[in-house]
Amino acid sequence: MSLYSELFYAKEINELFSDNQTINAFLQFEASLALAQADNGIIPAEAAKIIAQCCNASFIDTEKLKKEISLGGNAAIPLVQQLTRIVKNNDFEASKYVHLGATSQDVVDTALVLQIKRFIIWLEEQLKKLTQVLTTITQQHRTTLMIGRTLLQQARPITFGLKTAKWLENIETDKVRIEACKNRVLVLKLGGAVGSGNGNISLEVQKSMSNALGIGLPEMNNGLVELATTLGILSGNIGKIARDISLLMQTEIAEVFEGAAEGKGGSSTMPHKRNPVTSATIIANATRIPHLVGSMLSSMTQEHERSAGLWHSEWEPITQIIQLTAGSIEKTIDLLANLEVDSNRMLANIELTNGLIYAENVSLALAQKMGKINAHELIEKACKLSVSQGKHLKVVLAEMNIDIPDVDELFKPENSIGNSLEIIDNILSKF
Amino acid sequence: MSLYSELFYAKEINELFSDNQTINAFLQFEASLALAQADNGIIPAEAAKIIAQCCNASFIDTEKLKKEISLGGNAAIPLVQQLTRIVKNNDFEASKYVHLGATSQDVVDTALVLQIKRFIIWLEEQLKKLTQVLTTITQQHRTTLMIGRTLLQQARPITFGLKTAKWLENIETDKVRIEACKNRVLVLKLGGAVGSGNGNISLEVQKSMSNALGIGLPEMNNGLVELATTLGILSGNIGKIARDISLLMQTEIAEVFEGAAEGKGGSSTMPHKRNPVTSATIIANATRIPHLVGSMLSSMTQEHERSAGLWHSEWEPITQIIQLTAGSIEKTIDLLANLEVDSNRMLANIELTNGLIYAENVSLALAQKMGKINAHELIEKACKLSVSQGKHLKVVLAEMNIDIPDVDELFKPENSIGNSLEIIDNILSKF
Amino acid sequence: MSLYSELFYAKEINELFSDNQTINAFLQFEASLALAQADNGIIPAEAAKIIAQCCNASFIDTEKLKKEISLGGNAAIPLVQQLTRIVKNNDFEASKYVHLGATSQDVVDTALVLQIKRFIIWLEEQLKKLTQVLTTITQQHRTTLMIGRTLLQQARPITFGLKTAKWLENIETDKVRIEACKNRVLVLKLGGAVGSGNGNISLEVQKSMSNALGIGLPEMNNGLVELATTLGILSGNIGKIARDISLLMQTEIAEVFEGAAEGKGGSSTMPHKRNPVTSATIIANATRIPHLVGSMLSSMTQEHERSAGLWHSEWEPITQIIQLTAGSIEKTIDLLANLEVDSNRMLANIELTNGLIYAENVSLALAQKMGKINAHELIEKACKLSVSQGKHLKVVLAEMNIDIPDVDELFKPENSIGNSLEIIDNILSKF
Amino acid sequence: MSLYSELFYAKEINELFSDNQTINAFLQFEASLALAQADNGIIPAEAAKIIAQCCNASFIDTEKLKKEISLGGNAAIPLVQQLTRIVKNNDFEASKYVHLGATSQDVVDTALVLQIKRFIIWLEEQLKKLTQVLTTITQQHRTTLMIGRTLLQQARPITFGLKTAKWLENIETDKVRIEACKNRVLVLKLGGAVGSGNGNISLEVQKSMSNALGIGLPEMNNGLVELATTLGILSGNIGKIARDISLLMQTEIAEVFEGAAEGKGGSSTMPHKRNPVTSATIIANATRIPHLVGSMLSSMTQEHERSAGLWHSEWEPITQIIQLTAGSIEKTIDLLANLEVDSNRMLANIELTNGLIYAENVSLALAQKMGKINAHELIEKACKLSVSQGKHLKVVLAEMNIDIPDVDELFKPENSIGNSLEIIDNILSKF
Repeated sequence: MSLYSELFYAKEINELFSDNQTINAFLQFEASLALAQADNGIIPAEAAKIIAQCCNASFIDTEKLKKEISLGGNAAIPLVQQLTRIVKNNDFEASKYVHLGATSQDVVDTALVLQIKRFIIWLEEQLKKLTQVLTTITQQHRTTLMIGRTLLQQARPITFGLKTAKWLENIETDKVRIEACKNRVLVLKLGGAVGSGNGNISLEVQKSMSNALGIGLPEMNNGLVELATTLGILSGNIGKIARDISLLMQTEIAEVFEGAAEGKGGSSTMPHKRNPVTSATIIANATRIPHLVGSMLSSMTQEHERSAGLWHSEWEPITQIIQLTAGSIEKTIDLLANLEVDSNRMLANIELTNGLIYAENVSLALAQKMGKINAHELIEKACKLSVSQGKHLKVVLAEMNIDIPDVDELFKPENSIGNSLEIIDNILSKF
Repeated sequence: MSLYSELFYAKEINELFSDNQTINAFLQFEASLALAQADNGIIPAEAAKIIAQCCNASFIDTEKLKKEISLGGNAAIPLVQQLTRIVKNNDFEASKYVHLGATSQDVVDTALVLQIKRFIIWLEEQLKKLTQVLTTITQQHRTTLMIGRTLLQQARPITFGLKTAKWLENIETDKVRIEACKNRVLVLKLGGAVGSGNGNISLEVQKSMSNALGIGLPEMNNGLVELATTLGILSGNIGKIARDISLLMQTEIAEVFEGAAEGKGGSSTMPHKRNPVTSATIIANATRIPHLVGSMLSSMTQEHERSAGLWHSEWEPITQIIQLTAGSIEKTIDLLANLEVDSNRMLANIELTNGLIYAENVSLALAQKMGKINAHELIEKACKLSVSQGKHLKVVLAEMNIDIPDVDELFKPENSIGNSLEIIDNILSKF
Repeated sequence: MSLYSELFYAKEINELFSDNQTINAFLQFEASLALAQADNGIIPAEAAKIIAQCCNASFIDTEKLKKEISLGGNAAIPLVQQLTRIVKNNDFEASKYVHLGATSQDVVDTALVLQIKRFIIWLEEQLKKLTQVLTTITQQHRTTLMIGRTLLQQARPITFGLKTAKWLENIETDKVRIEACKNRVLVLKLGGAVGSGNGNISLEVQKSMSNALGIGLPEMNNGLVELATTLGILSGNIGKIARDISLLMQTEIAEVFEGAAEGKGGSSTMPHKRNPVTSATIIANATRIPHLVGSMLSSMTQEHERSAGLWHSEWEPITQIIQLTAGSIEKTIDLLANLEVDSNRMLANIELTNGLIYAENVSLALAQKMGKINAHELIEKACKLSVSQGKHLKVVLAEMNIDIPDVDELFKPENSIGNSLEIIDNILSKF
Repeated sequence: MSLYSELFYAKEINELFSDNQTINAFLQFEASLALAQADNGIIPAEAAKIIAQCCNASFIDTEKLKKEISLGGNAAIPLVQQLTRIVKNNDFEASKYVHLGATSQDVVDTALVLQIKRFIIWLEEQLKKLTQVLTTITQQHRTTLMIGRTLLQQARPITFGLKTAKWLENIETDKVRIEACKNRVLVLKLGGAVGSGNGNISLEVQKSMSNALGIGLPEMNNGLVELATTLGILSGNIGKIARDISLLMQTEIAEVFEGAAEGKGGSSTMPHKRNPVTSATIIANATRIPHLVGSMLSSMTQEHERSAGLWHSEWEPITQIIQLTAGSIEKTIDLLANLEVDSNRMLANIELTNGLIYAENVSLALAQKMGKINAHELIEKACKLSVSQGKHLKVVLAEMNIDIPDVDELFKPENSIGNSLEIIDNILSKF
């Protein structure tokens, strides 16, 4: 990740998953376990206090830890060994009670949950910012006319606000999914050697720990993979925004631009270019994340009470999904907050097709008189003439002596946006 | 799919997505649209009645339809053409009102939603059956002792009921996710050419249609991809069940078996084999589905108001995910309903390790006296002797003159299952 | 697949993988096995003759076969049962020798290889056509000026032939990869129950069969997955062609078009549209295939001598990869053979940026005098003025009193295409 | 990656892709470009010399670089800026010639190729070691009898050497694929702004650079994605080895073990366990890599002359594939070099089924007399009796009064390994 740590990622979330923070989360589990066991009379209070004091990442030899992870196959084993030694140096008696009754997966998974808890707080703040900026843009551009495009072809006019309202609606639904998923992912993992629990990690201990750590009681619920899929959908919705902006920035369309920043989006060889650099980054992330989500789903068919490989295959992909999504969302907020919209160019582009985009208006008007099929065929003919002769459709229709009442009204974009404004208002009113 | 239509799939759901049923769903949309428009005074009631009568799959020339799909790029265009012609043959006037104000994507997507609605009803029934059979097994085997295994190694005893209770808990959470997703996927799609709506598909029309079709009002909510991910998680949970059963059926373990059926699981060359045929099928599906979910996520970054390719890339993968999941779930119910459990063999397998699996019991007991680390090291030594000399751990400990109170109790599996029973009872009480 | 059988797929290859053709391939294996065993004195010649005569797909009850596949878990078991019964009805003695020494995987995998052999013959013909049409286009448009675009921004002029030459070069390399892969995928599978062979499927029998079937001797070589990845790359290269064409067809760019066919590319609601229907289909396939290739790779970690699930998970994805690739390639040939190129529009689009695309020319010319950095900064300033004032860059430079020798030459597209022609000629000369 | 840098990865290859080495590779490109341009009279020799001297990673401010990557969207832009400033500080004139005629993608992609070149040298050495150790094991265990297993069921005897010979054959074919891919991936990338070349990066310059850097001339050939797929297949083959070993290490099978190392494979709570820690790591990698390969394939449909996002989405996944594969291969060599094989346990396991695994031998022998079907049915009956009565099949057959000549020979494993030895010898002779 290193060289591209600020390109694809968000600094704060990189930091949250740094070695140091990860070790901290491990130690937070161990301290909390000891304290909970003391609270419930399982180990001496004094011992728990000493253990908790030793749970400090600065005491851990990280390089030694990394080396020894290969031996045990997970980070908990060598960490608990180091911790036990540190405690022993302080108090022999207390060292008997380190990690009591717990298993490696309890530490590793709960530590991740603690990091995810902090990530979700961050994410919720970001999503709030994102929907705020989308709401503002939607309000600003509620009536800004632009052409709607399907299959990359100009279709019929909409407003730019309709486009952004739909982006907004998707992100709002992402919030609902994240909220629902939160309770399932933010739970303590504490099952002992084979998930059967034991006296040292009794329900009472679990309750104490859950309370202390601010997470739910243990449950089997695929929280991690649900988080992965939920972020996958969020990332797709964000990617769609970036996709649209990158296309609208095309030299030939030029309706919307990433905000200019000193030195941003320039090309090393072409001084005039205005590259969709931020959009490209978000699209890159949206291209990768679906596969990482698939990777998480492929890790589900785990053998027996703990897998030989499919637990291990979760660790890095879930972190990558979180980190890439964090990068995308931070960049999208920045992108939208500084978006430049050229509404004149939007209006000009509507006129590019010599009125062809109003053909459906005319077709629908004529359908009243001659039926849909006949109208469709007649207009198809008129459109072909318009194209081959390079004439405006209105002119062609006149030359064909087709009588259409209120024809001028049919060719105004503001009369061709359907229920755009109602749809926008409905979306804005919901959130 | 054809040759393997009954191997990987469920017949009923294959049928639900047959050409005929798909065309039916398309026509259900068109009939409902016309009737809703008539109800709201947009088209004549008589015309709507005639259109609705013509919406009959048996009137459609399917071969012609398949050919013409390539021209328009989706199934709606040629279908609407055929339908319009059929209506015209009945009533010229009525033909003006076919598909009025709607666009291809409205038909294609809503038709799929209607099929998914029926699928989900089926799925909910199946999940009810699945959790019933899992509940029954869990109750039956609440105290059936077996060895828990981690990283494919014997670890410590659990009960078979603990294993199945965890399977159950996962499926119950899948139900919650499906319930939450349902309202987001089961919605009308009706946006017209560029999603901006128009007078012919007004909010009133949408309400009438939603009511008539028994689905929600239009929303942008990634319902399809959320369904895909939700089924992906379900499929992983089911795959995990099949994985465990296939491993427990291994000749050398032989604790659990797929039910024998005439001709089932035999090998073409080895008359004695009892292959995990059903499990293998479910595992195969669970191997494929994560990639299909990834494919759905990759289809999210769609351009503008409708994509040139990424809408099209959804159609078959979402159907495949549904169909493979349906196959897996139907097979899993059958697998579990007929599961044979050899509890004697389970008990015998617990004894395979000369008491080594009780080493932790002894270690924990000793830790009270000498601290965790010393106990761990001492027991590690005893275990090595047990292995190298082929002696039972209890014998080795005696020979080492290690004094352990109540040593016999430490070596009983029923005393080594931790909180298995409490966990089981807790899970059973929740659902 | 059914409804979209002509949209995403190629008819001929659909047919090649029909139930009937698949059963035929199975029976071709069985007939060939018996004849090879007779040739090597292992079974009576008369028996082999009878077996071979019975190996006729029309004798097989396909519906019964599909039902029974679930019992045995693969298609070979019930097929061999049916075949044996058919032979028995003809000659009891001969029925002893059906499928002698072979295992299910031998039949299933070899049958697939025989189908792939026919597919590759078809594929090679199609690739020949594809490179022919690409060669023709490249020759025709060797000097057709257009703008090159990077990050969706106009960059500098190229020729359309340069673009198509690079498409061509990629496809030519695909041919090399397919040729290399061919010998590894087109091999007999004949290992018996556990891949150890036996007297009835001796090396001599294998040689006879290989000769008769026109495929290589058995080898362990991941031929299927290599085919999958090779087609995956081909599909990506084809998808890139479709991506470019769909973008060049955008209303605002309009440089290249899919050929018009009666009824093609129209919209159900907008009579004027010219949708990139074929490109969209190819893009859809290119979106799905990477995930199917991933699925094949996920099937590689098979247990022991035959997997419980990961063999089964290969069957449909490899067929889907083949069928989708076949569809894409057939459609791409059609797309390119009928491509319409508007070279006037290409020229006009070059002029859209008020000469900004020549900024690098000027920058390089100035760099000789004042160094790259200074030149870059000066031109960046001139470009900004050109944009803000809406003036041609040449005018701005004059107004800034920047003296540039031969300035007019710097602003001609034909002088700005670098080594386009040499690169084209080099590519054309290689194949 | 950090915390798990030694678990899933190989140190040497981590180092090869460190920031420092990546920047070095970038600078190697720039130095080589300048020197090649001087050799061909395009820039002054003195300037090239100064540029080359400045191309030293220690001069680069890495933190500044990382920050600025976000602005330009790739690493080349800020690096070239830094380099130009460094050169300018040394010699103003020389600074005009830095990066002359090249574009960002030229640097980024060629730098990666230079790193891949070093990776492939490393990989070839590792593969040599891997096939050496596999050859040695195969020779040692050419006749070591064990049971072959299909669908996780005991099937028929093979030798352990047959299993390892097939592992070997797959790796040998991987070598062939890597060799073929090498020439396509190890090529210079030098196309300028839009891939059309220019006078400053003429064919002569390209030839000079290719020679100096020891790589081929520029070609469009999807080298990166081919490398990804090739490593994907290799990783699958390695994953299969780890899968088998992890299964053979199961407590109930216990035929093969990862070598014991101080502190390796222990559990934090169960002192007796011998976890397949290395195998689990390799399986984890093999679970993730297929999705990363899919990600690379999804990056192929790039727009026009350079993509807005799909070039960017290649950078990290290709590096991850390389690094994970490197980790897997290094670990596999270690795993195999220290593998412990318990041939007595292998023999004992063959006897677990009361002779059922020899049923096919008997069936084939009987088929001579009574036809395959009758024999199969009779033996099926005998097998069922053997199972239900817990008697050895030989005893059951005697009790059923079935007369089989040389019956004892049919029940010897060494007579039931088919052509195992011939297949082994054939494989060993090929490489």
